[in-house]
Amino acid sequence: MERFVEQALLYDFYGELLTDNQKQLFEDVVLSDYSITEVAEEKGISRQGVHDQLKRTNKVLQGYEEKLHLVEKFLHIKDKVHQIHKVVEQKETLEKDKLVEKIEKISNEILEEL
Amino acid sequence: MERFVEQALLYDFYGELLTDNQKQLFEDVVLSDYSITEVAEEKGISRQGVHDQLKRTNKVLQGYEEKLHLVEKFLHIKDKVHQIHKVVEQKETLEKDKLVEKIEKISNEILEEL
Repeated sequence: MERFVEQALLYDFYGELLTDNQKQLFEDVVLSDYSITEVAEEKGISRQGVHDQLKRTNKVLQGYEEKLHLVEKFLHIKDKVHQIHKVVEQKETLEKDKLVEKIEKISNEILEEL
Repeated sequence: MERFVEQALLYDFYGELLTDNQKQLFEDVVLSDYSITEVAEEKGISRQGVHDQLKRTNKVLQGYEEKLHLVEKFLHIKDKVHQIHKVVEQKETLEKDKLVEKIEKISNEILEEL
């Protein structure tokens, strides 16, 4: 997965467990795309300081995922729902029984994970 | 939701964020159904002590849910997948187009939440 997407997903899931400070820095640098220099100036800390804080925040977020695996779980479910969509898109060529059978199989797989 | 189910769900999602001590107590009292007296004796603490620790653990788990709402999110998705199942169960009486339309609608709703 692309680094930015991964970071944004982790933040989306676990961001509320960060401190306000960690949240703001993460949002400024990663999500709002301010430069490290701009953020460092605004906060009155060094560029290295910004780097270090951001690295720590990413580690915290990754730590939550390593323990809970909820992003992984969600992505897996999302993939399965996309599979249902793909089956539905074949509605013109697929017979009703076959279509139903496929959707039933995939939805059962989702329920096994929930 | 039944109290036990709610506790078990919260533990299933956020249990890994508890300390080993909290986990063990929770598993013994809530999941394995030992009595408070048995656990108190085994740990050499008072029954009140077991109560207090368990109450704190439940508060920690609820605190995570209040911040992240991931159990709520999962239950909602589960409900939608059950809806897909119900549509599939009507395969004998439902026309293919109608069936496909319903499943498409529900799966889109799931994707909007993921």
